[in-house]
Amino acid sequence: MLKNAPVNAIRVLAADEVEKAKSGHPGFPLGAAPIIYELYANHLKHDPADPEWFDRDRFVLSAGHGSAMLYAVLHLFGYPKMGMDALKNFRQLGSLTPGHPEYGHTPGVDATTGPLGAGLGMAVGMAMAEAHLEKLFNRPGLPLVGHYTYALCGDGCLMEGASSEALSLAGTLGLSKLIILYDSNGITIEGPTSLAFTEDVAKRMQAFGFQTLEVADGTDTEAIGRAIIEAKSDTHRPSFIRVETHIGYGVPEKQDRASAHGEPLGEENVRILRKSLDWFSDESFKISQDIYSHYREKAARGEAARAAWNALKQSYKSAEPDAGALFESYLAREIPPSVTAFLDRKVVREKPEATRGISSSILNSIKEDLPFLMGGSADLAPSNKTALMGEGDFSALTPEGRNVHFGVRELGMTAIALGLCLHGGILPYVSTFLVFSDYMKPMIRLAALMKLPILFILTHDSIGVGEDGPTHEPVEQLAMLRSTPGLHVYRPADENETLAAFRSALTSGVPTALALSRQNLAPIPASSKDAQRGGYILAAEGGDAPDVILVASGSEVAPALEARSLLKAKGVDARVVSMPSLDVFFEQPEAYREGVLPKSVARRVAIEAASRYSWGEIAGLSGAYVTMDGFGASGPATALFEKYGFTAENIAAKALGLMEG
Amino acid sequence: MLKNAPVNAIRVLAADEVEKAKSGHPGFPLGAAPIIYELYANHLKHDPADPEWFDRDRFVLSAGHGSAMLYAVLHLFGYPKMGMDALKNFRQLGSLTPGHPEYGHTPGVDATTGPLGAGLGMAVGMAMAEAHLEKLFNRPGLPLVGHYTYALCGDGCLMEGASSEALSLAGTLGLSKLIILYDSNGITIEGPTSLAFTEDVAKRMQAFGFQTLEVADGTDTEAIGRAIIEAKSDTHRPSFIRVETHIGYGVPEKQDRASAHGEPLGEENVRILRKSLDWFSDESFKISQDIYSHYREKAARGEAARAAWNALKQSYKSAEPDAGALFESYLAREIPPSVTAFLDRKVVREKPEATRGISSSILNSIKEDLPFLMGGSADLAPSNKTALMGEGDFSALTPEGRNVHFGVRELGMTAIALGLCLHGGILPYVSTFLVFSDYMKPMIRLAALMKLPILFILTHDSIGVGEDGPTHEPVEQLAMLRSTPGLHVYRPADENETLAAFRSALTSGVPTALALSRQNLAPIPASSKDAQRGGYILAAEGGDAPDVILVASGSEVAPALEARSLLKAKGVDARVVSMPSLDVFFEQPEAYREGVLPKSVARRVAIEAASRYSWGEIAGLSGAYVTMDGFGASGPATALFEKYGFTAENIAAKALGLMEG
Repeated sequence: MLKNAPVNAIRVLAADEVEKAKSGHPGFPLGAAPIIYELYANHLKHDPADPEWFDRDRFVLSAGHGSAMLYAVLHLFGYPKMGMDALKNFRQLGSLTPGHPEYGHTPGVDATTGPLGAGLGMAVGMAMAEAHLEKLFNRPGLPLVGHYTYALCGDGCLMEGASSEALSLAGTLGLSKLIILYDSNGITIEGPTSLAFTEDVAKRMQAFGFQTLEVADGTDTEAIGRAIIEAKSDTHRPSFIRVETHIGYGVPEKQDRASAHGEPLGEENVRILRKSLDWFSDESFKISQDIYSHYREKAARGEAARAAWNALKQSYKSAEPDAGALFESYLAREIPPSVTAFLDRKVVREKPEATRGISSSILNSIKEDLPFLMGGSADLAPSNKTALMGEGDFSALTPEGRNVHFGVRELGMTAIALGLCLHGGILPYVSTFLVFSDYMKPMIRLAALMKLPILFILTHDSIGVGEDGPTHEPVEQLAMLRSTPGLHVYRPADENETLAAFRSALTSGVPTALALSRQNLAPIPASSKDAQRGGYILAAEGGDAPDVILVASGSEVAPALEARSLLKAKGVDARVVSMPSLDVFFEQPEAYREGVLPKSVARRVAIEAASRYSWGEIAGLSGAYVTMDGFGASGPATALFEKYGFTAENIAAKALGLMEG
Repeated sequence: MLKNAPVNAIRVLAADEVEKAKSGHPGFPLGAAPIIYELYANHLKHDPADPEWFDRDRFVLSAGHGSAMLYAVLHLFGYPKMGMDALKNFRQLGSLTPGHPEYGHTPGVDATTGPLGAGLGMAVGMAMAEAHLEKLFNRPGLPLVGHYTYALCGDGCLMEGASSEALSLAGTLGLSKLIILYDSNGITIEGPTSLAFTEDVAKRMQAFGFQTLEVADGTDTEAIGRAIIEAKSDTHRPSFIRVETHIGYGVPEKQDRASAHGEPLGEENVRILRKSLDWFSDESFKISQDIYSHYREKAARGEAARAAWNALKQSYKSAEPDAGALFESYLAREIPPSVTAFLDRKVVREKPEATRGISSSILNSIKEDLPFLMGGSADLAPSNKTALMGEGDFSALTPEGRNVHFGVRELGMTAIALGLCLHGGILPYVSTFLVFSDYMKPMIRLAALMKLPILFILTHDSIGVGEDGPTHEPVEQLAMLRSTPGLHVYRPADENETLAAFRSALTSGVPTALALSRQNLAPIPASSKDAQRGGYILAAEGGDAPDVILVASGSEVAPALEARSLLKAKGVDARVVSMPSLDVFFEQPEAYREGVLPKSVARRVAIEAASRYSWGEIAGLSGAYVTMDGFGASGPATALFEKYGFTAENIAAKALGLMEG
């Protein structure tokens, strides 16, 4: 076997995958293969036999378009189900090898990547989780938690603002077990990086507080290895290793050219590649036994490490039985009965309160029984009311703290939350104003795609924002979030509904966004746990069937109830439906939905201080809308609700209009 | 008059504004007043008599929460309509002084700000526009275009990734007329910036390619002035001036504390402020005549500059009549009849083509007659097909180029587009994959709020993306965009509809997003200019009234037409409505909408490879949906359309289901 054969095996397999699929990104793998080889073969702590082993090092392929390379590596190391057929089915429907790596789908993939920048943010979150758990659980002689997080990125990831946000925070937090490998190939899709990206990246990373290292020859695996070792030796700072590589390495027509990036090399070029690499065979997807043997030997390191860790865990449990049990409960993220019982109470509240304040009470009531709950805000904690009182701050010196100060970095914060959740042992929540969920959206989408049970606490949920004006008043954000598949969105009307929303968020297993009011809301005496079904009858009609149904959420439930009284006085019999979660309601069985919103009653008024786009399927063709169909304005909140028609009088008038129509 | 009285006038007025409104942000104005004073009084080229004078220097208050300070300055300089009553109505409904500065609403406000980071991106766009026009139009001895762009920001703006993206590009582009003033007060809402932001900001800016300057004492207006002069002296690099200030300056209980940021100081503290500033009066909103005189004198500089420029413009027009006329056409962004005629043609196409390819043809056909059209992609130009062929690249050495390489920076790109448009003389378009409009969203919202006629070219608009998989396949983005007030969204089905979409985009005066296909689409022979009305009858029923209406957009129009034939064979008489723009359709008069979608026909099938949330108001309670209600998958596009039911057979089956229901 030639010295470079194991590295070249990655190159050749990746090229074959793309060629067979007639689709994919061959350029990056050809250049970056030595980096991923050196990392997986000689540094990354991983055992192919158990891809989910807790104390493994994490690896995020932030340049997710390099998926063919990652799949080749997982195949060569013998990861479960990653036989050669998996590679042959690259990018085919139902295969284990989709176009971009998908967490929960392919064994050995620690994060779904593809949208650039996201992977670096997730890696920061993983390193934070590690630091937190290490500080909490390790005991002298019993290093139960101790692993690194590696991310491999290209120029694209570093151009994205999401990564700047997250890496700046990583520097502040001194995440020394975070190691970023930067495949610097000088090429982007539109041409040389110099077209748009001439910054001194290493200097920027130094400014963030990173140790920076350089590998001038990206084919020199030994140099890459030395840099990784040096990165690990810095125990105060995260590290950034810039490795100079050549996109499309080994294919003269493609090397160092943008054309290498996103299309198959072509049969002839794959032949040329094999030749230039001195590859032993012309046959596609053919690997020699000695190469497999080489990888099997390299896998032994991780196998031994996992065995040692399992033994250590036993010793830990013997020596520290309470901490051992607590550790398991962190990993399971188990919601204890005390918490569900607390959330299931029916509360009778007398005084009005903002749902953001209620959220704060709930967080602080459950925080002790949910010690793995951890999070914070993008510098709006006093407004979002997300601080866990009496708990410390997460900082470089105190990573055991549960209150995270993310800074004004909504997108990076959300990427970090994905990483905290993916790592395991942490149940994260993050927060900002609802209108700024716009900034978070790319990462909220990834949370939904990966089914990560993250809690998004989004306060100041309407024109109730008031004086801050239209830039701060959400209108379309609820439609944006509700239309995101796999995300639950709740906009509770009072304390009982807020409790139900938390109950759902903590037990549904999917990400949940809470839209909470800035302003005080009067308690709704009839509010119910049925809020967990998304929508329910809050005030039934007087007679056999309602003349009209008023459907509202959040702060608009109270005026809807008032409107019902006004209508009664005019002889109109209205039902009021509270709809804290449209998407959860749509998940209910047909019979339940029909019970709440009978098809026979087409006269419906949808009432929400947000875009009407959410409500079409509720109010239908014959319905009426009391919604925000334009931007808000700056002024006292009460004046705004009046101006835009969120009054009992206007709602009643709309319902009367339907009666006449 | 005491030496500092003019600066203190800004402080006192801002504090009074917030105090009277009982709402707002007093801390920033108290610290930053010397910066804005020095800039407006001695450097910024502005004439209060004509806030929209083209060759004025631009000023962006990126820290938009400092609005009270800006309004105080505009008042003191005598900007139109900015009398003391405007300040007294700070943050009241209908006032000229909303919570955050609003472009197009308040004279002298060059950009709507508030969402942090956005203002810096807009400033970069403005500086790019200036550089472009300067290079195109200036002649020896006739410097028609020559102004600076200043932005004032705080820590928050610099933590936001949007600003990193834009500033990195500003460095690459060598925008030497861009000057960023950084109010560095060490405080954020959650506490000291050290909680989350310890990076060496100046070093980062140097890495981006900025000249960096420091002013250690933020009350020293002369030092601030010297730094501004030094910034202007660098003709190759943009400049970044860090000014150390004290939030809440002058109020001991608040100074250097987070509590100074976002709540009124309180009556007693306002009294203390006046005392600590040696202010001449205890009365609110009271300014002495000598202070007004001082500002009037300071305004004279800009008045003279504008007069000189008007004279220069006359000389220019005499010496260079063609260029002078061209210049006026740039400023007017006039769409010539040749372009509208081109877009109004009815095209008969034989071969299938992707709408992204059609978009490319259109851009390249109109580019000569629309020389002020300028834009590009976030490093996906070959995929988005947005290059203007034969036109040069915008670069540091060639700012006359019209093709902008934004790099992988969707959010920063969009903020820059706002700036290009706000500056005037440029009609910008920006582009990426539709799924990555997620990253652009915060800035798309600002475009809509400011009514900026920017064109967003969003390609790869569905599961037609194919092998790249769910991270790259948009599902909910159309609902997100359509629900944004004031934004038009088109998803054309073929060339005629794409022409109509461009026609609308160029003439509507509002921002427009185009969702374009990656894959080829067959021409629709009956497609029509009525696409400009949002939706229209593409294939009428055979009889008097349709049994069912099929409503589709984009790539789903063709299978809907096929389904109509299948239904006909089964004796079901279907109408097909093409709906390229739901939001534009909703803007049509009731009678038109009723003609296309008669209320009497409740059997409707909505067909679109995207979230059903858009379609509720069309298909209503009794309708059927052929939509994407989950994420996509990786595989060949044809396999995906089949898997998710976007076939004539499935559409026909859904319609038949309605007939039976």
